[in-house]
Amino acid sequence: MTTHDKVRVSVLGLGEMGRALAGALVKDGHTTTVWNRSPGKADDLVAQGAERAATARDAVRAGPLVIACLLDHASVHEVLDPLAGELAGRTLINVTTTSPAQSRELAAWAADAGVTYLDGGIMAVPDMIGRAGSSVLYSGSADAFDRYKPLLDTWGTSTYFGEDAGLASLYDLALLAGMYVMFAGFLHGAAMVAPSGMRAGEFAAMAAPWLSAMTGAFEGFAAVIDGGDYTVEGQQSLEFSDLGDILAASSDQGVSTEAVAMVQRLIRRQIDAGHGGEGFARVFESIRRPQ
Amino acid sequence: MTTHDKVRVSVLGLGEMGRALAGALVKDGHTTTVWNRSPGKADDLVAQGAERAATARDAVRAGPLVIACLLDHASVHEVLDPLAGELAGRTLINVTTTSPAQSRELAAWAADAGVTYLDGGIMAVPDMIGRAGSSVLYSGSADAFDRYKPLLDTWGTSTYFGEDAGLASLYDLALLAGMYVMFAGFLHGAAMVAPSGMRAGEFAAMAAPWLSAMTGAFEGFAAVIDGGDYTVEGQQSLEFSDLGDILAASSDQGVSTEAVAMVQRLIRRQIDAGHGGEGFARVFESIRRPQ
Repeated sequence: MTTHDKVRVSVLGLGEMGRALAGALVKDGHTTTVWNRSPGKADDLVAQGAERAATARDAVRAGPLVIACLLDHASVHEVLDPLAGELAGRTLINVTTTSPAQSRELAAWAADAGVTYLDGGIMAVPDMIGRAGSSVLYSGSADAFDRYKPLLDTWGTSTYFGEDAGLASLYDLALLAGMYVMFAGFLHGAAMVAPSGMRAGEFAAMAAPWLSAMTGAFEGFAAVIDGGDYTVEGQQSLEFSDLGDILAASSDQGVSTEAVAMVQRLIRRQIDAGHGGEGFARVFESIRRPQ
Repeated sequence: MTTHDKVRVSVLGLGEMGRALAGALVKDGHTTTVWNRSPGKADDLVAQGAERAATARDAVRAGPLVIACLLDHASVHEVLDPLAGELAGRTLINVTTTSPAQSRELAAWAADAGVTYLDGGIMAVPDMIGRAGSSVLYSGSADAFDRYKPLLDTWGTSTYFGEDAGLASLYDLALLAGMYVMFAGFLHGAAMVAPSGMRAGEFAAMAAPWLSAMTGAFEGFAAVIDGGDYTVEGQQSLEFSDLGDILAASSDQGVSTEAVAMVQRLIRRQIDAGHGGEGFARVFESIRRPQ
């Protein structure tokens, strides 16, 4: 397949994300069949040129490639278990949010049914699909990834991690973990400054460029972690990173200290174990080896 | 003072940050006197053109403007209490890391001594001083800020928040809180993927652009918070933000769940209070009103 080949592709599940994925495929000229359990969700896509399937079975039969973007792991089985016979010989790309263990279970189910399986983790909100910054992680069948990469690239940057179908979900969840924890950090800061009269919008205007710039530190932390020597010169030490001032100021402002106390505990555990003079990256060890 | 006026300025405290600040002043052509408790720290600055003061008293006497960049609040009092007489009529800009309460205490001390006081919070590491991305927050004397802004701008973007000397420290600590919490989120993700063989450097290469892009969400959260209506359409709901999958995957990988569990608790508290259908921004309320 060249980048100009067009594919007969079916999309099962037309929630906000499913509609965004299908819309990008229609726009890119692929013959796109769409299905959703509850009707009505397909109308806009049909107006744009998609074909409506009356049943999931009809959608699967429409072509060699099936995209599943359903509610959860249970929904995938509910919709696809009765269609294992039709799916045999076809390719299933599952971008439904699942855990690594669930993705592996689906890959084993697909292998039993003679279905080529690729798992995807979407690092974007629906509005971002097909635009700069959208990224989708894949693992599972390398053949499926290679064959359909031009089509997948219509959604965003496509990265393949290996045959273990659970990897895309794992990396997806690890990046989402970072995001949710960062969100809590932002909201903590916004709550800290609120009693002084600063609006959340003002704080966001400072915090977004600040935290964006501070992601520049990740590479240095990673180099220390991968190097295996937390005593390397030039790092900010754990002792210097004591968050007592931030905790005290949070309490003084009358807000919860939970977000910052979590980091302080991870730091203190390394200091208490005698590593206070070593670099901040050592907090990794507090997480990697739970108490 | 015009942007071309040069100032006689003294810098007390020549740790890494103090040296960076003094170096930027020397480079910008200000007559800069430097002092540090332990000798030797001034040598490079003197080679660049700074003047060495034998005592803190000599440094204070050298000009109208004194910058303090010392270890902590106690160090500021230790160095400056005996020099209150010499400081009278001069301007003290204190960029030592202090809590809001400590900054206010120093402002009151300065007012008693007839010293014009401006407090600064440096949002940069020493290497960034004088370069793009460096930002310093100020509060306290508006006159001092206005008079010396061209000099302060040599360190980075200078922003003034008001006469309350504690504000710069408060905003500084709020931004640092966000940073440390984000760092914990990054290290959590790196620990999650490590058992699958992904190196921290590979994860950092994905996480830095991802989290940087996701700071784009702050503005939307802030608009909801400032608007005071968490039921506004178009938000990701708290129920949809359940972190059960991420917690399970973290446990499966054998790593600590503390960072993610902290966010989950903040989310659950709002869901349990009946707000599960409202937007994620409502987590702000879990922090603003501690249990």
